[in-house]
Amino acid sequence: MTYCVGLRLDRGLVFMSDTRTNAGVDNISTFRKMTSWEVPGERVITLLSAGNLATTQAVVSLLDERTKAPEERDPTILGAPSMFQVARQVSETLRDVIGRQAQAGQRADSTFNATLLVGGQIADAPPRMFMIYPEGNFIEAGEDTPWFQIGETKYGRPILVRGFDRAMSFEDAVKLLMVSFDSTLKANLSVGLPFDLQIIERDALVLGPRRRIAADDPYYHEISERWGAALREALDSLPDYSFET
Amino acid sequence: MTYCVGLRLDRGLVFMSDTRTNAGVDNISTFRKMTSWEVPGERVITLLSAGNLATTQAVVSLLDERTKAPEERDPTILGAPSMFQVARQVSETLRDVIGRQAQAGQRADSTFNATLLVGGQIADAPPRMFMIYPEGNFIEAGEDTPWFQIGETKYGRPILVRGFDRAMSFEDAVKLLMVSFDSTLKANLSVGLPFDLQIIERDALVLGPRRRIAADDPYYHEISERWGAALREALDSLPDYSFET
Repeated sequence: MTYCVGLRLDRGLVFMSDTRTNAGVDNISTFRKMTSWEVPGERVITLLSAGNLATTQAVVSLLDERTKAPEERDPTILGAPSMFQVARQVSETLRDVIGRQAQAGQRADSTFNATLLVGGQIADAPPRMFMIYPEGNFIEAGEDTPWFQIGETKYGRPILVRGFDRAMSFEDAVKLLMVSFDSTLKANLSVGLPFDLQIIERDALVLGPRRRIAADDPYYHEISERWGAALREALDSLPDYSFET
Repeated sequence: MTYCVGLRLDRGLVFMSDTRTNAGVDNISTFRKMTSWEVPGERVITLLSAGNLATTQAVVSLLDERTKAPEERDPTILGAPSMFQVARQVSETLRDVIGRQAQAGQRADSTFNATLLVGGQIADAPPRMFMIYPEGNFIEAGEDTPWFQIGETKYGRPILVRGFDRAMSFEDAVKLLMVSFDSTLKANLSVGLPFDLQIIERDALVLGPRRRIAADDPYYHEISERWGAALREALDSLPDYSFET
């Protein structure tokens, strides 16, 4: 499993992903699930992936190759005129990879599945973010739902529902994501440190801060330790139940 | 879907369940998923159920009939010498009901499945609580894991992980459960009000307070409204992230 979140804030995009991959609980590894591309001054793109690792690595490799080899540059996400067209290229690549596995006589289609988040900004257009399904179709984060999760989404969802504010600072967004990831980590062995963090600042058109939150990251551990106490204080602050009423 | 929780506190047991059943999102109904039995001064038992409604209703009806019809009183959960034997009877009844459906030529075995929580106290023995799987085996809540969830468990789990304390009062336990249920309700249409609440006070050997939390319950709505603000304050109280470090 995996846990990845993309937030569309007023001031830009924030992406966070874990790095754990597993085939059973006795076979776990660490792989980056976040890839970014940039043409400074012109476009920035970040991709997060959840699902079958062979599938997601093939998708990223194909997308990446086409940005580099001149003879294969068409279509390339670095040439797409809009983020919508980027999402289309990514979704077609995903569908092709899954389809090729399935056609090769492999039966377990579902295990080749993957879900992707792709977001970024191209030139004057505003930042946009899309969630791409294994079927190759996709949806865009809008005013009403300005954030997406993929992978093991349930444990970390309640705090996002309550804590997200599109006007929040990048620092507050990272804090919120740390708590959401911590809630997931506490409940599910298939999500694990380190985490990857990528900021895309609106209209900067260069990649913003990028961090790897390591297993011994002091900030993460401080958040994790203090969140329990903060939650209990929050509970205490609520009115008490009475069996009399 | 369903959401049910059972807590084993030092001072007794607390059970809460929702009442929504659904076959698709366009066919929802309200059914009680909590059943209690008592022999005042001798034993109290509460059962929560998640899964196929026909299965769980059949299990409850069979258990209930055997407590009433003299000629079918053996075995009955009101005659079992221990909570362990109660759990055994319940699990055998569950396995029989599921097995009968499957043998009757019905194919979709998995859809007949159900998971149960049963807890209570018999005479001098301490209160005990069990989770019963569709396969008919079961586990008991112990020192390390003194609470169980069944149904749509993930959204409401993080707050239980952080907020549970076996020494807590019944009032605080109800507050905690309200928050856990609210987090689930906010995220999943298949869990819905009203909720049922049952307290089993240690060594009372009569059923404790039992409540139905209606859709317009003022306490629940106050918790639900104030929890969002309390969570944001809890987030604010955590140290801020800095991109500089």
